[in-house]
Amino acid sequence: MKLVSYRQAEGAAYGVVAEGADGPAELASAIPVDGDFAAEYPTIRAVLEGEALGKLAEWASGRNASLSLSDVKFLPPLYDAEKVICIGVNYPKRHPVHGDMPPPENITMFLKAEGGLVGHLEPLELPPEGPRDTFDYEGELVLVIGKEGRHIPKEKVFDHIAGYTVMDDGSVRDWQKHSVTAGKNFFASGSCGPWMVTADEIADPSAIELHTRLNGDVVQNTTVASMIFDIPTMVSYTSTMMHLKPGDIISTGSPEGSGGSRQPQRFLVSGDELEISWSGIGTLRNKVAGP
Amino acid sequence: MKLVSYRQAEGAAYGVVAEGADGPAELASAIPVDGDFAAEYPTIRAVLEGEALGKLAEWASGRNASLSLSDVKFLPPLYDAEKVICIGVNYPKRHPVHGDMPPPENITMFLKAEGGLVGHLEPLELPPEGPRDTFDYEGELVLVIGKEGRHIPKEKVFDHIAGYTVMDDGSVRDWQKHSVTAGKNFFASGSCGPWMVTADEIADPSAIELHTRLNGDVVQNTTVASMIFDIPTMVSYTSTMMHLKPGDIISTGSPEGSGGSRQPQRFLVSGDELEISWSGIGTLRNKVAGP
Repeated sequence: MKLVSYRQAEGAAYGVVAEGADGPAELASAIPVDGDFAAEYPTIRAVLEGEALGKLAEWASGRNASLSLSDVKFLPPLYDAEKVICIGVNYPKRHPVHGDMPPPENITMFLKAEGGLVGHLEPLELPPEGPRDTFDYEGELVLVIGKEGRHIPKEKVFDHIAGYTVMDDGSVRDWQKHSVTAGKNFFASGSCGPWMVTADEIADPSAIELHTRLNGDVVQNTTVASMIFDIPTMVSYTSTMMHLKPGDIISTGSPEGSGGSRQPQRFLVSGDELEISWSGIGTLRNKVAGP
Repeated sequence: MKLVSYRQAEGAAYGVVAEGADGPAELASAIPVDGDFAAEYPTIRAVLEGEALGKLAEWASGRNASLSLSDVKFLPPLYDAEKVICIGVNYPKRHPVHGDMPPPENITMFLKAEGGLVGHLEPLELPPEGPRDTFDYEGELVLVIGKEGRHIPKEKVFDHIAGYTVMDDGSVRDWQKHSVTAGKNFFASGSCGPWMVTADEIADPSAIELHTRLNGDVVQNTTVASMIFDIPTMVSYTSTMMHLKPGDIISTGSPEGSGGSRQPQRFLVSGDELEISWSGIGTLRNKVAGP
């Protein structure tokens, strides 16, 4: 099942994407979730909190995918997540001069506050902070937590994952020199979507493949199997500190190829189009706007 | 006005503390906010979002402070804050061996996720992570945002501050070596409260004074005037990235005297009692529990 959050004139809502959608999300259609079901479960997060994914599939079965997604404004699927946890360096990297960089000894993490992420097709906001033109992209796989837990052992982690989505972990490199949090929390500097894919649709998460394209050129390409800290390790680690809750999301780090690591560097400018695709999940596309 | 959030059998609620309360918060009484007012403004955050502090004062005027705060479970006053922003090094510090440390060139910041903070008198949870016994306290002044804004100029900052409260920015030092976010986000490792004091009650914020006591001994003592980055600088800086919203809180960093900076080091152990007092605001008291 693919679940999409969106905004219409009436406010925020969500839908079940028609089966078989595998092109651009805005060309797909969806069953808008409404009536008693929406009253009981007003958001995707509420469906997860209520352990109601099965109930939703049943509700949607046989209903009409009457909503064209070209008519909505996409929201991040978990736009109301309580926690947006992001993992730092998690793929092997090469320094352009010094060659292979040693892998980190430990997981690093940071948080994104509400306001940092926009949905599919919404403009990324070029930070208007004067000459600091170091606005960068990072294509990442996102885990959606479906079952609460703390101190989750590695072998139980997949029981806590309800699905997957895609993130551009937007980064303003000059401000990251002040603190990771500063550089990673510019308003509307990143994106998430286009939808959430439930875990049952991804037979082998380690096999899925990322293509990040900038104006059509592939700039990042990897698979989950290349991660330094695998999915069980990351989720178990974050649950050491935090009580994970349904709807929390964990973005899992970005491979080589972001603009700041290229030779020469290539940061985002107004008009650039970024596309981040994970096989079996979908393509998140955003353009860079103004100033 | 002092505003307190709490939990009773019926759920979370808030109240207006009876005038003149200046001892332990649990010995004060409050006017419980109920009826139509509570339906329209169910939380302190909602009062701030509705710019309804004046309306609340009017509503409370002449009502009976019928609730004894000894009968409630305290919550952080802004327990539902959208963003909990914390500022790093912000007071002059001395290294026990190397003497005065150079002040930071830039503000550093990090975020705390929901779950990290408990209310007044609630137990601080000693992290159960094996031998990493580096659980530390940091007494801090907290600014409560009352008016939304981005790119707030320094001279306008006080227009955006609705009030003040107190935080223990609980820190697990060994995990901070992985990432600041890891060490600062252990479940129930910090606290906030006992209440929020509205800005009109603090004539000169730079003059207010901190006393942090550990089992009765003063371990931190400073005034706001000693901050490296003053209140206008901090709020203006965070609004560079983030769209600040009513109910967001900004904790402003901690002075010398936390356990890890003492000679010899003195980390928190089960049974310790921590009291953080800012003059004119109140005293936040918590004991360290188990395991």
